[in-house]
This record gives sequence, C-alpha cells and structure tokens, in this order.
Amino acid sequence: MLIVMEAQATPDQIKAVEAAVKARGYEARPIPGGERMSIGVLRNKGAVDAALFVGLAGVKDVIPVTRPYKLVSRETRPEDTIVHVGGIAIGNGHPVVIAGPCAIESEEQALIIARHVKSAGAHLFRGGAFKPRTSPYSFQGLGLEGLKILAKVRQETGMPVVTEVMDTETFDQVEAYADVIQIGTRNMQNFSLLRQAGRSKRPVLLKRGLAATIDEWLMAAEYIMEGGNTDVILCERGVRTFVHHSRNTLDLSAVPYVRRESHLPIIIDPSHAAGRRDQVIPLARAAAAVGADGLMVEVHHQPDQALSDGAQSLLPEQFASLIRQVDQIFAIFKNS
Amino acid sequence: MLIVMEAQATPDQIKAVEAAVKARGYEARPIPGGERMSIGVLRNKGAVDAALFVGLAGVKDVIPVTRPYKLVSRETRPEDTIVHVGGIAIGNGHPVVIAGPCAIESEEQALIIARHVKSAGAHLFRGGAFKPRTSPYSFQGLGLEGLKILAKVRQETGMPVVTEVMDTETFDQVEAYADVIQIGTRNMQNFSLLRQAGRSKRPVLLKRGLAATIDEWLMAAEYIMEGGNTDVILCERGVRTFVHHSRNTLDLSAVPYVRRESHLPIIIDPSHAAGRRDQVIPLARAAAAVGADGLMVEVHHQPDQALSDGAQSLLPEQFASLIRQVDQIFAIFKNS
Amino acid sequence: MLIVMEAQATPDQIKAVEAAVKARGYEARPIPGGERMSIGVLRNKGAVDAALFVGLAGVKDVIPVTRPYKLVSRETRPEDTIVHVGGIAIGNGHPVVIAGPCAIESEEQALIIARHVKSAGAHLFRGGAFKPRTSPYSFQGLGLEGLKILAKVRQETGMPVVTEVMDTETFDQVEAYADVIQIGTRNMQNFSLLRQAGRSKRPVLLKRGLAATIDEWLMAAEYIMEGGNTDVILCERGVRTFVHHSRNTLDLSAVPYVRRESHLPIIIDPSHAAGRRDQVIPLARAAAAVGADGLMVEVHHQPDQALSDGAQSLLPEQFASLIRQVDQIFAIFKNS
Amino acid sequence: MLIVMEAQATPDQIKAVEAAVKARGYEARPIPGGERMSIGVLRNKGAVDAALFVGLAGVKDVIPVTRPYKLVSRETRPEDTIVHVGGIAIGNGHPVVIAGPCAIESEEQALIIARHVKSAGAHLFRGGAFKPRTSPYSFQGLGLEGLKILAKVRQETGMPVVTEVMDTETFDQVEAYADVIQIGTRNMQNFSLLRQAGRSKRPVLLKRGLAATIDEWLMAAEYIMEGGNTDVILCERGVRTFVHHSRNTLDLSAVPYVRRESHLPIIIDPSHAAGRRDQVIPLARAAAAVGADGLMVEVHHQPDQALSDGAQSLLPEQFASLIRQVDQIFAIFKNS
Repeated sequence: MLIVMEAQATPDQIKAVEAAVKARGYEARPIPGGERMSIGVLRNKGAVDAALFVGLAGVKDVIPVTRPYKLVSRETRPEDTIVHVGGIAIGNGHPVVIAGPCAIESEEQALIIARHVKSAGAHLFRGGAFKPRTSPYSFQGLGLEGLKILAKVRQETGMPVVTEVMDTETFDQVEAYADVIQIGTRNMQNFSLLRQAGRSKRPVLLKRGLAATIDEWLMAAEYIMEGGNTDVILCERGVRTFVHHSRNTLDLSAVPYVRRESHLPIIIDPSHAAGRRDQVIPLARAAAAVGADGLMVEVHHQPDQALSDGAQSLLPEQFASLIRQVDQIFAIFKNS
Repeated sequence: MLIVMEAQATPDQIKAVEAAVKARGYEARPIPGGERMSIGVLRNKGAVDAALFVGLAGVKDVIPVTRPYKLVSRETRPEDTIVHVGGIAIGNGHPVVIAGPCAIESEEQALIIARHVKSAGAHLFRGGAFKPRTSPYSFQGLGLEGLKILAKVRQETGMPVVTEVMDTETFDQVEAYADVIQIGTRNMQNFSLLRQAGRSKRPVLLKRGLAATIDEWLMAAEYIMEGGNTDVILCERGVRTFVHHSRNTLDLSAVPYVRRESHLPIIIDPSHAAGRRDQVIPLARAAAAVGADGLMVEVHHQPDQALSDGAQSLLPEQFASLIRQVDQIFAIFKNS
Repeated sequence: MLIVMEAQATPDQIKAVEAAVKARGYEARPIPGGERMSIGVLRNKGAVDAALFVGLAGVKDVIPVTRPYKLVSRETRPEDTIVHVGGIAIGNGHPVVIAGPCAIESEEQALIIARHVKSAGAHLFRGGAFKPRTSPYSFQGLGLEGLKILAKVRQETGMPVVTEVMDTETFDQVEAYADVIQIGTRNMQNFSLLRQAGRSKRPVLLKRGLAATIDEWLMAAEYIMEGGNTDVILCERGVRTFVHHSRNTLDLSAVPYVRRESHLPIIIDPSHAAGRRDQVIPLARAAAAVGADGLMVEVHHQPDQALSDGAQSLLPEQFASLIRQVDQIFAIFKNS
Repeated sequence: MLIVMEAQATPDQIKAVEAAVKARGYEARPIPGGERMSIGVLRNKGAVDAALFVGLAGVKDVIPVTRPYKLVSRETRPEDTIVHVGGIAIGNGHPVVIAGPCAIESEEQALIIARHVKSAGAHLFRGGAFKPRTSPYSFQGLGLEGLKILAKVRQETGMPVVTEVMDTETFDQVEAYADVIQIGTRNMQNFSLLRQAGRSKRPVLLKRGLAATIDEWLMAAEYIMEGGNTDVILCERGVRTFVHHSRNTLDLSAVPYVRRESHLPIIIDPSHAAGRRDQVIPLARAAAAVGADGLMVEVHHQPDQALSDGAQSLLPEQFASLIRQVDQIFAIFKNS
C-alpha cells in the first residue's frame, strides 16, 4: 500500500499518517518524491484496507499494491488447476463444451436436447431446475422435479450435469443431483451461498457478476476455496455496459488476465452475453480463439416455445455447426 | 409489445410472427409503416417476454411497451405509500435521517455513536451485525451479539434500528431484533431472500444493485410486495460506472423517475456512493434537494479505528453539520 | 510513479527495470515489501507515462502518483479562479444561471425566450448557432445568422451570450460574437480546437466528454490554459452509463472532486443530463445544493415546436419556478 | 415511432398528441392496448426525433422504430462494400492486417518496423504523424515530416499507408500523403472533420468513439457517405466501461451486429483495446474468429523506447507469431 500525501501536507500531517500506519501494526516508510511525500505501508500480511487511511488529513490518495486474494492466486499456486467431473478434465488444455436448455421444462424436452448436444459433441449437459427470474411472475423452474430429470439425462446419456443453486435451503438438494454446482451472476456475492459451496464436495462453476471486477470475482472464488473446496471453474458471461446491441458486453480480455492472475480454469458463456441467437456463434468462436478452457451454450430444439431465454438459444443444427467451428479453432491452439 | 420487422421481411415471415403471437394467446395487430411492418402484441396481461419473439426470422427488434411491474407501480396505486416504523413515517413529505456506523463493533461504540446521531437529529439508527464483505478475511460482523447491541441502542435512545440481513438462515434472528430489515446491494436479486422478506411483518429497506436498472430494482420490490409485505423503502446508493473519483456514481435522477413510476418511498445513501468522507455532505445536500424521502448516512466517532468503511464515515460533528444543512433544504421543499 | 514487481520477479528483472527508469532520466528507488519489490520513480518533473514501464519483464503494475495536470491544479494555484463576463463574475460564490434555447431558430424565438429568462433571473443567455448533430439530416443551426441574432439578444437584454464553437474554421466568427465560447461534449478532446481556444481572449466553457474521466477533462482545460487563456469554466452535463431512465447520468460528485483538485469554476447542465423535462428541476436543485458555481438550462417557449432538444427544454414558467427554487438553496450556502 | 401513453392519459391528451404528430406532417395511428393507448407515427421519411413528443402531457414513452441511418444501411445496399487501397481489397472475405508503430518517430524507426511487419505478412502500414494526446506536454507527432517518412515507407515497401488526421487545417496535407485517412476515436463526432472526409477521394478508416453506440458510429459514417465518399472502413477499438484490467473493453459483438445493419467493412484494433502487450495476441485471435474483415495492430522494435503507447506495442517477433496464429483462424472461415 502506498499513501500519497498532498503537495502541501504539513510535517505534522505526515507524522500523524505514519503513526496511524504503525498503530495498525504495519511499518511506515516515507518516500520523498519531486513534489510530494508518499508513505509505503510494509510488513502487512495480505492486502491492507485502503479505507483505513483515505480520510486522514493531508492524504491525497491511497493506492493498494498487494492483491487481496491468496488461494486463487497464481503466485500461490503456479500450475493450472484441473477440475475433474466424471471422466472429464476441465482446464487441461482440452476445452470442454457444456450445453443444454436454459431451463428444464420436461423430461421429454431435456432428453431430446441432451441427445442432440451429445451427438454434436458436448461434454456436459446444463439445465436449470431452480431459475433466478427478474420477475416473480415468470416461470421459476421445476425445482426437485427438474433435478430428477437431470439425473435421468445423466443416466441415459452419460453426460455429467451442471445446474444452478439459488439458495442455501436448496443447496443439499442440488448437491445431491448435480455433478457441477453453478452459482449464478446474481449470487456471485451471496457470501452465505459461497461459504456453503466451499464446504461442498462438488465442483463449483462460478459466474461473474454483472458489474464485478475481476478482483471481486476472484475474491468470491477465494470464499469457496477458503472453505476447502478447490474445484472452482470461473465463467465469464458478459458485463453490463452502456452497450445495448447485445444484452451484455462479453469481456474476453478476462481470459488472459485471469490466466495471469489465477490458476483456476475459465470458460465463456456466449449465450447470456449475446442475448440473441445471431451473435452466439461468432462470440463462441472468439471465446475459443482467445484461449478459454471451454464454453457453456444454450440450446433448445423449439426455442420459440421455450419457457425462458428462447431468443438466445441455438437450434440443435446451429449448435452442431458451432461445435464444428470451435473445434477447428481449439485444434489450432491445443499445443500452443 | 411491438415487434418490428426487417424492411425486407417477406409476407410469410410476417405471417409466421403473427402466428407465434397468437400461439402465446395474444392478439397480433399489423401496423404498416413507411419502410417496414410492425406487429403490435395486444390482449396481454402484464409484460410479455421480448425473448419469445426476438429470434424469429425477419424480426429486427422487439420493443416492450408495458412495464413488467404491477404492485409497485403508481398506475396500480396512485397515492404515495407511507411506511411507519416506531412513531416515524417514511414517505409522508417529512424526510427521515438514518445514521450510525457501518458495523456494530461493540456496545460502547454503538451507544456513543447512537447518542451523537440522536442528539444531532437522526430518526433511526443503522448498524451492521452481519456484514457482506468482498474478502473472506475481513471482519464479518458480530452476528447475534451485534443484534443484541442494536436492541440496547433502541432501548436506550428510543430510535428504531435498521440492520442488514444476509441470508435466509439468519432471517428470523434479524427480524426478531430489527425494526427495519435491510436487503443490501449484493442481494438485490437474491430472490429467495426477497420472498422471505415478502412474508415478514417488518418494513424492508431495499438497496439498489450495483448495476441494476430501475426496472430490475422495482421488480425486486415486486417480489417483496407479491409476498404480502407492502412496506418497502427503496434506497439508491450509487451505481458502478467508468468513474473512479467516487466509489460509485450516485444516480439522483432515480428519485424523480421512481416517483413517477412507483408509489414507494425512496431514500439516498450518500456514504456508499461517495466512498470518501469529503464528498458525503455535498451529496447529502444534493439528495435532499432532489426530493428524496430521506437519507442514510454512516457516522463513526473514531473512523480511523473503524473495522469497516472508516473512510466514508462522518465524524459526529460533521454529521451534525450535515443535518443542519439538509434540514434547511428539506424546509424549503416541505410544502412544495 | 510506483512500479510494482511480480512476487517471482528475478533480481535481474528488477535491475533491468531500474536501468530503464534511469535511462529516462529519473531516479529509481527500490522499496522492498512483504511479498514483492516495488520501485519508486523519482526526480520526475510532471507525470511519468506509465506505458513506458508497464510491459517490462517482471512488472506487475505501474501506478501513477503525480497528477498529470499543472496549470489547472489547485496545488499550483490555491485560490479559486473567478471568470468575469460582462459585469458577471463566475466562481466567486454567487452562482450564475445561463439559460436559453438549445438552438437559435429565429430572431423572434431568441428574443421571446431571452426576455423570459432574463425576467426570471438568468444572468447569461445561451443558444446554439452551429449545432453538432448526430445525424447529417438534422437541423444544423443557423450559423452566422444565428450569431447575429445572439448579438441582438445581448444588445436588447444586456445579457452576455454563450454559444458553441464546432471547429477551427468558424472559430473567429464565433469569437467575434460570443461573450463565452462553449466547447461541447463531443469536442472535449478536439485538441486543435482546444489550442485555438487557448489563444482566444474569450472565456471558454468546457463541457465534460461523455465518457471522460476528470483527469482527462482537466487535461483538456490544461490545453486551453497552456495556450495562455486562464478563463476556463468547467461544465458537467452527465456521463454515459448503463442507465437509461435519464439520457445521461449526472455525476454530481464531480463538483466536490473538481473543487479539491482544481481552482477552476464548475457549473452543471441538468438539461442534457436528464434529456427529459420532468427531471430537469429536481437535478437543478441537486446541482445547486451540491455546491456548483452555476447552472446552464435549456428553455423554450414552444418546446413541441423546437428544432432540437425540445423534450428537455423547460417552459418559461417552469424555468421561473426553477430559479425560485435554486435561489433558495443558493441562499443557504452562499456564506458557508 | 411509437408513442406510448400513460394508463391514465385522458382522451384530450391523446387527441393532443395525435394533433402534434399531424402538425409535423406525419400520420398518427391509435393502437389500443390492454392497459394503455399507443400512437404509431407513420408516413415519416427517415427517423423521427423522439424529443418532439417525449415531453407532451400524458406521454409515458416514445420509442423509435426506424433506424436513423440510410446510406450505411444494409437495407439500402444489401451487398458488402469492398474498399480498394493500392492493390488491396478490404471487405471481400480476405482479411487485411494493418500494422506499424503508434507514432512515426524517425525515418529509421519507421523503415525498420515497416520491413518487419511486411515480412511478417502485414498488408498496410500504419503510423501517426499528428498524434492526439491527452496531455499538451506529451509528444505530439512529427507532423509533415512524419507524413514524408510515411511516403518513403510506401515507396520502399510498397505498402499503402494509414495515418490519422486530427483537424480540418491539416486535412489536405494528410490527404496528400495517406492512402487511407484515419479518423480517431476522439474525433468520431467531429462533424466538420467528417464532412471534409466526405469530400475526400481517399478511403476513411473511422474508429468508434469511446462511448459511442453503434447507431452513433454508423451515423458518423453516414456523414462521410452523405458527402459522397463511399469508401468507409469501420474500426472497433474497445469502449470505456467499469472494467480496468484492460484499458478498454473490446466489444466483439459489434462485428456481427454491424454486419447485420450495414454493408461497410469492419476491422478490429486489439492494441488500443488491451492497452497492454500481453492481451493483444489473444484479442487479435478472438477478432479473427468473430469474423472481422481485418486487424490493426501496433508494433515497435524497441517498445521501451517508444515515444507513445509502448506498453501495448508488440515486438516484431510477437507480431509475426500473431500473424501466424490469426492466419490459421482466417483460413478456417474464409469460405464459410
């Protein structure tokens, strides 16, 4: 941490800041500059809270230096984490594709789509049983019945299943059926849920919040790892910006940045980023090319009948085309 | 809902869209324009999901017309909602001030601050017992002990207390001690928590999410009202933008907009918007002038010792000055 | 400038960075921390370009400490700048109100509105002769004829006039007629125009860019001051965010922040921030309360006939009401 | 255009709105809905200004239907525009790569880099002679001398050259030397410059503004096309968001969206989006995969000595690697 003083800060103000640093148990090191004094904060274990010093008299800025995360950091663990689900390894350089409908609507719907995506080459099946919906009047998912359908899909197709958990009450239920537990965008900072996921034996797919910085996202993963669960998969799905020609703005620079900062695998969800079908394949190709560890894509055989998110769901034949296209890109970079 | 067709849409595409509208149980009304056809969707009860039609062949845009919310809408209830807490009415034209520390740290700390803010003119006391923290290593609040301290503050000062609930497990505990239950920014779309708040007898203070549109915020309030709890207070606390000279960007146009759209009271939290002490009083004055129903402000007698958010906490004498300033502004507009 | 090294940076990498700092003529000071080395860059005059060091091997972050601006900085000039226009002083604690139509449409229109706003209490008249328009097919302003009408307004009402300059070709023309030259949002970083404004004898009203940080805005003012023109008035008019219930998001924290960083006066344009009439008066009140040095407001006697921006223009009686309201707020804080 | 009335709008208010529509020369068509009346605006040529109606009594919303652009629209010209520069065609399915330093610093520097990028496979050379700089104290480019160096580069390497024009004064100079005239991000809405570019015989590379919607960007291109210059190349280079792990957020969904809306070619500049070298190659691969017509990349043989933007410049061997990687991606999709 670096505390930057105002150019006109008095010697007494500087002394008071040094004293405040020491009172917190840190070392204060004055660093005289051309125009102003700065004070380095040393001997800290982990990040220091900037808020402690930002309001003191004569202080112009407080600049964090240390990153706040530990367990998720590549500095703590230089080698990539590989998450194993069923026989599938996520993060080992062989990208995975997770596909399925937004919501499980019926056993028939789930099985039809599951057969399609498996034959096209998907590795895991996704489908929501508990759906977070902006409106209390929208379809909220089939709940336990949906989970049971997911189990049938796994049994019939052999694909591990990914499904979202919405709260701590239904956590055990979801955990009993899911191979990978998804924590959604709106719950990225639901800390009680993160702690419970930290105690789970299941891998967790953690979606980035709608306006989350990568620091905040990695800190959410840190909650899970701190609880003892090291199997965390990050999922970028677009952030909210002023842009409205897509539902969200897919932030692909997150991939190289997360790779540099963390050892955790990162996949991309182009469907929620786009919010409209005609952008999903181009964004999926871009995600493959940027170096993501995989994709999560919404597919529906009757998107105009879907109970949620039909507009962004690919038709099975479009999904098969997507797989063919991204496979060629993945093939180029597999060994690079 | 208005479905706008491409200029080159074929008659068959137009017919297919009309059929899709009818298949959902709505009426389709063609509206020929200068360059293209549009199709109005009529006979809907409540908002229609744009996603149902956005991907159909020949469709250029789908434009919602009806607002998605009902119970929170001023069209449903033209007169202002007034929320009563203790002897205090929120939303009746007499603005309220809620003040206290970010977190309850000890009985002594809470009582000292409570006496200060009460003597300065605060109406309600705020303080966190369960704290949502970005880092798992930060102080997480005193929990139940903090709630008991809040009860003592109420007993000694007579001020009703506002405190945040973080999850459904601790909801009953919080409800047992709090006069107003706060749902924080990160939980604005924690739908399980919203539903539980909807079953509570306590008023709910619902903070706006970091990147929430007002539609989404009002829909979160709709979840609470739909559960039967009509005592919802909205609280604007800044949104996340590219701006970094304040922690968040306070969106004061939310006040006239919410007033037009909804009958619910709306207050402003300048402390979390600013994130730094020197902007809190100017923003509080602006909030009073824009017509908010009240303020929520963080105060600490030893901000450089605070366990959280010290940088944005006012000193007691600064808070007293804030009250004197905003009272003059409130006085001007009381009867306007 | 502080260069933060990776935790695993080698001694050779650290030496190479020190050498790179020295090669630029600065002093390099190593600052060992708990987990990593940082290197302070000293003996710089003015800000150092972070880009010089950000890509070097072993470098994690490069953190600027010195602000890039000099002449606009309050550290350079502690006392407030007061800009004199006609007999009016801007920035001396007596707030000014600038009002008029978006565009000058005719002599009759300009004079009718000018008389209205003057009798309501406006100090300066505004009106566009050259209009920056998103569409080439929209009304582009009356040009020279509009400037001549502005001169008539000044002659008849005694109000100094503010009008926008769009390019260097028409600069002299605008300068010959205007009392204050406005540089608009889209031209905030039109550096050729800023340099020409720097050579002008007229005060310049510099609007903030749609996505400009305050540093960038102050640097644009620095261009003008560096050219020799010290009469710069800053104007905040809303920034672009994900929010769409107002046209832009008014960033009122800019006022206390600019006051701290710079000696230049700052006024607020609530009309362009709101983009719709019903939010203008509430935001104008907020602007007065936050401590701005003045307001710029669009007024039109026939807004539904206006050739541009009618939706955000106040009717004359609404403007008179605005003046009455903000005057009461200004009166409270005049001497505070 | 659709004008949506409040649910409580009176018949008189509805009639007044219809009259206002007719007074503008349009046809008003009432469209009764379940809860409210809407009024369609017909017989308009081109987009209608929403501002005309948004403030009328009883009006809740005004929703544009027609896109504001004409000449750039794919509805006007269904086939792709191909821009020819030297012997190179941009937009014909064979992607182009434009490369070179941020700024021309000397003949030696320009020639060294030009030979590198040509041998690696670049088609056009880029380099700034006039540099828009945030600070008046930064290197502003070599001006005319830089243009002459570009001419030498073209003569020696045969590569056409792209360089930025900053203002109308130096337009003719730039036009005399450049093969493609670049209009930069900060000048995207410098309408005087756009008009002059519309009268030029040179192709124009139009960068997207930092916070420009695609509608605004296409309208800027419309200014150029309306002046008679049909050779416009769009260049996405990242937009400003809350994200700070890259300098800007690359908005790749712009590519499929622009392709749908317009016939103009679109290329991607990953260097300015990233702002740091380690993200440039991943983003360039993503840009190739998303379907862009080309790339513009900054390259410098001594980036730590560069006078501007060194941090984001690739070394020549990195650029060669980039070309090899994107060529493989381009090869996949060439015929798809």
